[in-house]
Amino acid sequence: MPKMAASVWSEKIVQLLHRMNNFYLPGSGRSSCFRFEINGAQVGWIPPHVASLLKRHPQVFCPPQGGAVRLCPSLDSYETRSQAVDVVLQNLRREESIPCLRGWRDERYSVMPRLSDAPLMWMERAATSLFGVKRYGVHVNGFTVSDSGEVSMWLARRSRTKQTYPGLLDNLAAGGLAAGVGIKTTLIKECQEEACIPAHIATQARPVSTVSYTYEDQEGVFPESQFVFDLELPVGFKPSIGDGEVQEFYLLPIDKVKELLAGDDFKPNSAMVVLDFLIRHSIIEPDTEPFYQDFLAGLHQTL
Amino acid sequence: MPKMAASVWSEKIVQLLHRMNNFYLPGSGRSSCFRFEINGAQVGWIPPHVASLLKRHPQVFCPPQGGAVRLCPSLDSYETRSQAVDVVLQNLRREESIPCLRGWRDERYSVMPRLSDAPLMWMERAATSLFGVKRYGVHVNGFTVSDSGEVSMWLARRSRTKQTYPGLLDNLAAGGLAAGVGIKTTLIKECQEEACIPAHIATQARPVSTVSYTYEDQEGVFPESQFVFDLELPVGFKPSIGDGEVQEFYLLPIDKVKELLAGDDFKPNSAMVVLDFLIRHSIIEPDTEPFYQDFLAGLHQTL
Repeated sequence: MPKMAASVWSEKIVQLLHRMNNFYLPGSGRSSCFRFEINGAQVGWIPPHVASLLKRHPQVFCPPQGGAVRLCPSLDSYETRSQAVDVVLQNLRREESIPCLRGWRDERYSVMPRLSDAPLMWMERAATSLFGVKRYGVHVNGFTVSDSGEVSMWLARRSRTKQTYPGLLDNLAAGGLAAGVGIKTTLIKECQEEACIPAHIATQARPVSTVSYTYEDQEGVFPESQFVFDLELPVGFKPSIGDGEVQEFYLLPIDKVKELLAGDDFKPNSAMVVLDFLIRHSIIEPDTEPFYQDFLAGLHQTL
Repeated sequence: MPKMAASVWSEKIVQLLHRMNNFYLPGSGRSSCFRFEINGAQVGWIPPHVASLLKRHPQVFCPPQGGAVRLCPSLDSYETRSQAVDVVLQNLRREESIPCLRGWRDERYSVMPRLSDAPLMWMERAATSLFGVKRYGVHVNGFTVSDSGEVSMWLARRSRTKQTYPGLLDNLAAGGLAAGVGIKTTLIKECQEEACIPAHIATQARPVSTVSYTYEDQEGVFPESQFVFDLELPVGFKPSIGDGEVQEFYLLPIDKVKELLAGDDFKPNSAMVVLDFLIRHSIIEPDTEPFYQDFLAGLHQTL
């Protein structure tokens, strides 16, 4: 592959960041979305096509008012809210009218205004985008530094059978933050399950950043924040396939990884995690990258 | 001093970030500001009290229209624009009606929509906040790592005679980016001038981040982006007072520096630069800091 001009690379990265933050761009569907509120606090965004379907369940969702869809106040506990919404979602799933519910995972995500707040209910992961509920995860940059200081990065090729982004490049390990589980604990678990990295190595991963963005597609709204860890691996260490989420691991020179970011072969949020690494490790420099500050702003949006 | 509770510390930092981004908070003066436009491109924000004064100079500033104050199109070059605006500003300075112009520095800042664009004019530094023109600078975190891995940070105490933030704590070195001068070049110059750090050491500083924010006060609007460098210094090295901008340097354990961030003794944007360091160096961790993601978003706002 011929080397890409620097300006073309920058432009591709700017486009990636715009795409991943398209919910807050002019002309997005945001103005037609309803705020999703529980107990007066906003916990998500509901697109109009979802709000229409929810009207059939007035005992769970109050009719839209003042730009908001509210959970009925009679549902006044974590458990009653979660159960009532789950019944509605199971119904919608059976009707097969909403494509994303075909990806039902039986994986419970916490719903709350902010990560530091107590969860107000849980919701099936596959449904969270219909309600624009914030989702949190962990991603780990696995890398090596040679004696001469050259940085290489471990990338994973996602399995062809993954529900989302099959066959694309990804970080060494990553996973969603489930209700009530710690961030570093999740990281150590994912390193073990996906890449067979023993806990005594994974525990050396260092928290260094978050990557936060909000995008929309035809199904819903995705406000997400990924906690980013750096894990420097011994030069001889090789990750190996664990639970089958990954088909192959590659160790690549960092300049090659940088080049790959601008192609279509990368899971988009994982590309953002690598971009953040390139900035923190001075692989990208402000004197030569005109969009340096834009990159930083695009990686760290307010949710 | 008794140790501050973690939750109080977090709350103080959240308040700092809100203050430094108050222009984009609900209830700010933004809705009453005029866009400052040159050739159809926005280059700043003009508060109403400044727009009123500019009406007396219709040969330079077109009367406000559609929420914008435009530079007259007859001023069609870098030099004519800069000179015409400078004449107006020198007038205002003589009238002594605008306090910030008492801080006139004869320091020319470039005016352009984005740092990567060609400058459309220059403007005296002391006047930039009246026009909400974006300002860029460099800040360097000077730190040491002991054999046992303990991190300490060099802080500067600003001279009591500085025009801005006299006597407050600051990063090891910092300075504004003047028209046409490179970012790393500026950093090396400031390290030399302010802290007598020789170029062969300063050049080892690594670009790692930006800190970007927009605040307003009674005088104007301050959209700023600081390019952040980390400079690990040899354990025995001591910076020393150069051009008199600094009265003293201190080497402090990183936990002590963290505590100081929450007090009133720190120049606010320098405190943000240290906060960014604490995150990147895993001194703050997401499992124990509930506002971790908010900190990252607050440090990296879109200008």
